[in-house]
Amino acid sequence: MTLSQFEIQDIDQTVLLWLDHLRIKTLIAMQQQLEVDTKHDVRDLVTNVDKDNERMINAKIRAFDSEASIVSEEGFGDQQRDMNGNVWFVDPIDGTMNFVKERANFAIMIALYVDNKPVLGWILDVVNNVVYHGGPQLGVFANHLRLDNPVNDTLSDGIVLLSGARLLYGMFGYDKIAKSALGYRVIGAAGPSFIRVILGQAVGYSSKMMPWDFAAGQVLAKTLGLSVSDIDGQPLNMLSSNIVLVATNRAHRDILTLHQS
Amino acid sequence: MTLSQFEIQDIDQTVLLWLDHLRIKTLIAMQQQLEVDTKHDVRDLVTNVDKDNERMINAKIRAFDSEASIVSEEGFGDQQRDMNGNVWFVDPIDGTMNFVKERANFAIMIALYVDNKPVLGWILDVVNNVVYHGGPQLGVFANHLRLDNPVNDTLSDGIVLLSGARLLYGMFGYDKIAKSALGYRVIGAAGPSFIRVILGQAVGYSSKMMPWDFAAGQVLAKTLGLSVSDIDGQPLNMLSSNIVLVATNRAHRDILTLHQS
Repeated sequence: MTLSQFEIQDIDQTVLLWLDHLRIKTLIAMQQQLEVDTKHDVRDLVTNVDKDNERMINAKIRAFDSEASIVSEEGFGDQQRDMNGNVWFVDPIDGTMNFVKERANFAIMIALYVDNKPVLGWILDVVNNVVYHGGPQLGVFANHLRLDNPVNDTLSDGIVLLSGARLLYGMFGYDKIAKSALGYRVIGAAGPSFIRVILGQAVGYSSKMMPWDFAAGQVLAKTLGLSVSDIDGQPLNMLSSNIVLVATNRAHRDILTLHQS
Repeated sequence: MTLSQFEIQDIDQTVLLWLDHLRIKTLIAMQQQLEVDTKHDVRDLVTNVDKDNERMINAKIRAFDSEASIVSEEGFGDQQRDMNGNVWFVDPIDGTMNFVKERANFAIMIALYVDNKPVLGWILDVVNNVVYHGGPQLGVFANHLRLDNPVNDTLSDGIVLLSGARLLYGMFGYDKIAKSALGYRVIGAAGPSFIRVILGQAVGYSSKMMPWDFAAGQVLAKTLGLSVSDIDGQPLNMLSSNIVLVATNRAHRDILTLHQS
């Protein structure tokens, strides 16, 4: 099934309305005591807001697109085995540690893929009240402002964003990447990191991620002419974890070369 | 010489007016092509804005406080040998790489010490239009809002901020600190890092810094009950580089213990 430009704009505007509501809901929840639990380890946090947001988003998707599948972080989605038809990706709070400790630098992310093709992505920066949204048919917008493709800088002329834990434990050759870049930063969340690459503040970002962490970012980044792959240069598997690399074309090539050396 | 509460408030308000002007001047300069040079190495950047801002700030200080000494980054200050009398510290653009590449996450910082005692500090977050200012006689404010002391969390319950380059090259035991914390982040600039500790978003921050990097942050952090020392627990030398550690009292103890082990 191919969606028309009008249908895609309608979906975009519909989800933007959901995100308006979610933002207010999240800000109100932040004024109350958060219920914080851990998942796989003490650094893998989940809160009542993660769960409540996911329940609300998934219910909106089910009501709006009843045939669709949902791949979401906190267990209220489907056990998805293929990318046929409409598949939605939901990260109800991306960067939960930042959400809990910094009260900033987190995001709400949603993406729509149709028959495995990226169609629309939304990354809401809750605190700054900016939603980055769009896709190949629309372009990419920060709220209502259209974004240009970022400058195609090399790794040695730019800042690269890396997963702090993986760098610290010597994984994925991140130390070589960090040493080759002009500088590196650790943000601690996927959405805010994708935003920086999309805005040209960083030339690249790499971390091990689950599909809800990278689905929206991939739509927006590819639309803006950035390269998105796994760290070996292969397309991302949308139904499992990947060592994701998003970068300018030149920095992408620099990083793949480093990784293979 | 001891300043009265009224005199200190007058100095605070005077510098806030300078910073209003500097902010506009900096934003206008960012709309034009920056002239970027390197200093000691390719990662040590300086721009026309660093130099212009420092010239302007130092001229304002000389006109306002003609007897004072100035310790500033870009060479327009004095060759200061002691902390007698009024000593001003000026960082005209803190986080120049962020300024150039991210166009965010940098600051303008000014501090006043009298006879080696911290009196006032200002950290201006230019992009977000928030100036963190105050001192022991006034308290600390984010613009007009008084800040509370941050919660006294431990290292293992909080996010720690570290110098990326020093962590990457295995210096100062930063890997142990990062592994013991709940998480770590790399921001790439002193002012924005001090702000996060002051706001309680991080439990601590450590980097090797020059006096203009830490003078303002030290005033604000100490006023808010945080611990500031070098990485061995000794008072900072205000006229040379230090491996600075600012942290909650509990995280400060945790980090000193780790560093000595």
